[in-house]
Amino acid sequence: MKKYVIGVDLGGTKITTAISDLTGNIIEKTTLATGSHLGEKVVMDRLFESISMVLEASSISEEEVRAIGIGSPGPLDAEKGIIITTPNLPFRNFNLVKPIENRFGIKTYLDNDANAAAIGEYTFGAGKDAKHMIYLTVSTGVGGGAILNGRPYRGNTSNALEVGHMTIEPFSKHQCNCGKYGDVEALASGTAIAKRAKEAVEAGLETSLSQIETISSYEVHQAYLENDPVAIKILDDAFMYMGIAIANLIVNFDVEVIVIGGGVTKIGDLFFDKVRESARSRSFDFMFDATKIVPSELGQETGVIGAIALALIESEEK
Amino acid sequence: MKKYVIGVDLGGTKITTAISDLTGNIIEKTTLATGSHLGEKVVMDRLFESISMVLEASSISEEEVRAIGIGSPGPLDAEKGIIITTPNLPFRNFNLVKPIENRFGIKTYLDNDANAAAIGEYTFGAGKDAKHMIYLTVSTGVGGGAILNGRPYRGNTSNALEVGHMTIEPFSKHQCNCGKYGDVEALASGTAIAKRAKEAVEAGLETSLSQIETISSYEVHQAYLENDPVAIKILDDAFMYMGIAIANLIVNFDVEVIVIGGGVTKIGDLFFDKVRESARSRSFDFMFDATKIVPSELGQETGVIGAIALALIESEEK
Repeated sequence: MKKYVIGVDLGGTKITTAISDLTGNIIEKTTLATGSHLGEKVVMDRLFESISMVLEASSISEEEVRAIGIGSPGPLDAEKGIIITTPNLPFRNFNLVKPIENRFGIKTYLDNDANAAAIGEYTFGAGKDAKHMIYLTVSTGVGGGAILNGRPYRGNTSNALEVGHMTIEPFSKHQCNCGKYGDVEALASGTAIAKRAKEAVEAGLETSLSQIETISSYEVHQAYLENDPVAIKILDDAFMYMGIAIANLIVNFDVEVIVIGGGVTKIGDLFFDKVRESARSRSFDFMFDATKIVPSELGQETGVIGAIALALIESEEK
Repeated sequence: MKKYVIGVDLGGTKITTAISDLTGNIIEKTTLATGSHLGEKVVMDRLFESISMVLEASSISEEEVRAIGIGSPGPLDAEKGIIITTPNLPFRNFNLVKPIENRFGIKTYLDNDANAAAIGEYTFGAGKDAKHMIYLTVSTGVGGGAILNGRPYRGNTSNALEVGHMTIEPFSKHQCNCGKYGDVEALASGTAIAKRAKEAVEAGLETSLSQIETISSYEVHQAYLENDPVAIKILDDAFMYMGIAIANLIVNFDVEVIVIGGGVTKIGDLFFDKVRESARSRSFDFMFDATKIVPSELGQETGVIGAIALALIESEEK
């Protein structure tokens, strides 16, 4: 009887692996350095090692494990189990799933980290009772994942919910790392907030931010709380644009819940209040009112719990 | 053995009803005036009449009909079978499905016309082999419907794919009938094209359009073909915005096919070429290349064939 699953949160700097029962209770967990700079063989060995470690520590055999779920940065091909390319990992068009299945004899599923987080929030977090939900992460970038009709929705090339690259102001002067102007990431990400602050300082605007060496959304929020007018303008603008992005998700996807996590949401109520206000004014009241916009409930644990939930949902009877 | 379905295309001016076999071959078809101005009882009676007419003309009994599908303007609640409200029909929070089921003893499904069209193109038209597809209509308004994972996707309030009300230029001076500024309908619909032409004439710009009493996208296209610079600017802008809307659908939904119908697409290759060019520049090449953007194959028949396809897909074993 297979009563356990394993979740692997594969990041650029660390690998967190946990074994849990079928209700998501973590029995053993381990974290190793990824060792990305040492190449794909080393990373692969550390993946093997982390899985072996949680099996040994919990005295659970391979035969008792129903599935392994791996959340990784993308782009990747979830269906084939292939990481296509990602800036912080050494894999290029690399099938990550096969060597793990061969080694442990356990069915293994790969997905990008935003989808895994969406599945995690849907299974154990803020999207628990929803039939249709979207998870968004607002951090240096803006990414997302969706559960539609109770199943993960990935799209044709496994790249659905690239919310950060939706254009919301085509003639904006602000450019995204992807090259496009006026997409969500260029206007509302943590990177955008930091860039706007740097630009304001360089333009000689009077702001307490000019005292700070390295500015992130955290410092801009601190200045905001001290009524710094430059910081207020920067955050108000970013949250207004984030609200437009959310409104566009509401009119297109009409989901019950939009769960938002990622570094920028640590700003808290100010973020959620301003984003909701903007989203309401750019959608329809009856659709806005039918959509809960709530913070992530899994927080720091989203990665590994998402990978556990991926293993659970994909190995379910369908 | 139930070997037939009935499709009803309920419009503000006419009701078209057809009976078909399970492969969508139409056996009998009839069109009646809706009689919207005469109130809900009259419209209901004409719906009954049109269904009775195709049954009698084809000598098929109620017992042989698997399902009835009705496509109607929305907003409506597809799950409950209720038309909430719509400008061109007399129904207000009216359950359209129950009286038909009671009268004929045939399971009946209601959906909005854009969803029915999406199901029609998916079952019989340009989206036939796709697992994930979107249908868009670009006419006086801009609406859409989606098939995701091979099933109609309607969302939480049955209003998914309100593509016309996605904001793509928040500080535009152009206002939509819904009150919002810079949404797709305000910038890229047939109404928007006609409005821009009227504004240009009123501003005294030199254009052949000033000779025309009532301008629609058809007349603007005729002037475009004669190199009228005002007409060229108007259509180029509208198609550029439509391309941004399509790019946003690509990055969010990552479907295999986007089928576009509606009056404005009668402009043909010019429309599709310009829209594709803009969509490519606002999405990612690999995602754009994986998405076919094609004209509707059902054309004028989309309504009633969509309703037939709705009856078929909803009465299938799931």
